[in-house]
Amino acid sequence: MNLILAIDVLGTIAFAISGVLTALHKRLDPFGILIIAFVTAVGGGTLRDILINAPVAWMRNLTYVYVIFGAAIFAVIFRKRLGYIRRSLFLFDTIGIALYTIVGVEKGLAADFPPVICAALGTMTACFGGVIRDILCNEIPIIFRKEIYATACILGATAYLFLLKTNLTEDIILIISGSIVITVRLCAVYFKLSLPSIYRKDELEGP
Amino acid sequence: MNLILAIDVLGTIAFAISGVLTALHKRLDPFGILIIAFVTAVGGGTLRDILINAPVAWMRNLTYVYVIFGAAIFAVIFRKRLGYIRRSLFLFDTIGIALYTIVGVEKGLAADFPPVICAALGTMTACFGGVIRDILCNEIPIIFRKEIYATACILGATAYLFLLKTNLTEDIILIISGSIVITVRLCAVYFKLSLPSIYRKDELEGP
Amino acid sequence: MNLILAIDVLGTIAFAISGVLTALHKRLDPFGILIIAFVTAVGGGTLRDILINAPVAWMRNLTYVYVIFGAAIFAVIFRKRLGYIRRSLFLFDTIGIALYTIVGVEKGLAADFPPVICAALGTMTACFGGVIRDILCNEIPIIFRKEIYATACILGATAYLFLLKTNLTEDIILIISGSIVITVRLCAVYFKLSLPSIYRKDELEGP
Repeated sequence: MNLILAIDVLGTIAFAISGVLTALHKRLDPFGILIIAFVTAVGGGTLRDILINAPVAWMRNLTYVYVIFGAAIFAVIFRKRLGYIRRSLFLFDTIGIALYTIVGVEKGLAADFPPVICAALGTMTACFGGVIRDILCNEIPIIFRKEIYATACILGATAYLFLLKTNLTEDIILIISGSIVITVRLCAVYFKLSLPSIYRKDELEGP
Repeated sequence: MNLILAIDVLGTIAFAISGVLTALHKRLDPFGILIIAFVTAVGGGTLRDILINAPVAWMRNLTYVYVIFGAAIFAVIFRKRLGYIRRSLFLFDTIGIALYTIVGVEKGLAADFPPVICAALGTMTACFGGVIRDILCNEIPIIFRKEIYATACILGATAYLFLLKTNLTEDIILIISGSIVITVRLCAVYFKLSLPSIYRKDELEGP
Repeated sequence: MNLILAIDVLGTIAFAISGVLTALHKRLDPFGILIIAFVTAVGGGTLRDILINAPVAWMRNLTYVYVIFGAAIFAVIFRKRLGYIRRSLFLFDTIGIALYTIVGVEKGLAADFPPVICAALGTMTACFGGVIRDILCNEIPIIFRKEIYATACILGATAYLFLLKTNLTEDIILIISGSIVITVRLCAVYFKLSLPSIYRKDELEGP
């Protein structure tokens, strides 16, 4: 359990810092930076909880609030040196989305939603904080333009749902499906993979 | 009932395809296209359900999910030829918003909201999927700039609410108010009607 | 109580008119103007109610709907002359956010959320109508770029929460913390204060 909490906190930190970086790039003021850090970290889970009509987690458990606040201040102060920890951040972020995906799927299962919807809820938990961040910063969400990790989440969520029908213990299932998310994403970044383009070359000139 | 289900499915298809077309225009990737198709088709109803604190329909009834998924794939593959079925799509879409409007009004009445709010809920069900689609695609919602069909929905919803106070059977009321939505919209498109401009000519130079 | 209702109505009018002005600037049509007026006035409270899973106030109490409708029509007709009442509007708006902040904090306390979250709910109630307005108008929310009143709300909400632990009567607490919001904002506007910039000069060229 402590391991999962640690992953959750590290993932939240990585998400919050990614929000700060986007907000700094847009030259937002301190209030804007804080809101964007917050939304990036908890937006996906909040949207999920609203859709399934569950209480919103960060409103009752202040751990997230303090972690995001601390991460945002840290990121603003050390913004020139975040390059040095870029790799660690990327790793936290990747492990974070793996965990977020599975948390989302589990919340869906607990509320008795069909498997397809649970996979969607898992993907939403991991990806839609970034979607809300981009909308608030007046950008088309990057995840809609250049597939970064939605596919990894979908594959991990699907694996989790299938493995639940086997005899494996829950811990093993968690580790396998989490590893799928992480592996797919690491491979995607390392080999510069993305979803196959559906546009012919001449379509991409323009729009 | 089967007729209503058929209208609902055809409307969902038309909405999903309109989402795909916007997403293609913005050169989104397959994941983005799917999300935009989804949001366009079910976004209005989802917003309504969240506001009235009702369970979100598509999360329990997978028909919508499969229909939208199928329509999105179809629209991507045959995107060069969608021009041939443009008229059918427009017809489905028009019938769809008529039905969506009335479904929204009925959901509001069932939860005992005042008539003005029920009319707003009907209009929201029909129009706000497009609003969310446009926001996600980083555009000012087209329905706020160039009135396409909100007025038709408002008129149809109002008619429905008035007719409920008469002795007409529910089927007749549904048909009359649905026809009002459809007629107003067809006339608006055919005669290129729009809401009267509130800007003087010199105000429109600029912004 | 009548005083509070009057403040609430005046605040709603000021918020609705600010929405109309933004919508006019973007050359929206009458339907768009009405929606933006509405969202600016009730968006913050609506988001708060969704997050804390409370019924949305304006859907049961039509006062807001009529006030916003009337204010929007008034603002469109007299838009050339709104300059004359700019000061009154600014005053209503300032008093309005003071009230909205405290209403938000109180709703949070009533639902037993931790103080930090209650302060956030108060700030959200006062500020996020404008955030949704700006997103719908395809702008980065102005409150994220150039701090106008979030800090005033945060200070007022914090004061309210601290004063609750004293022996003061609720009326006195309301007046003191409301005055803090109003004073901070008036000073900020008068002395052109804003949050300290976190950007060095060379960072602000670009982006």
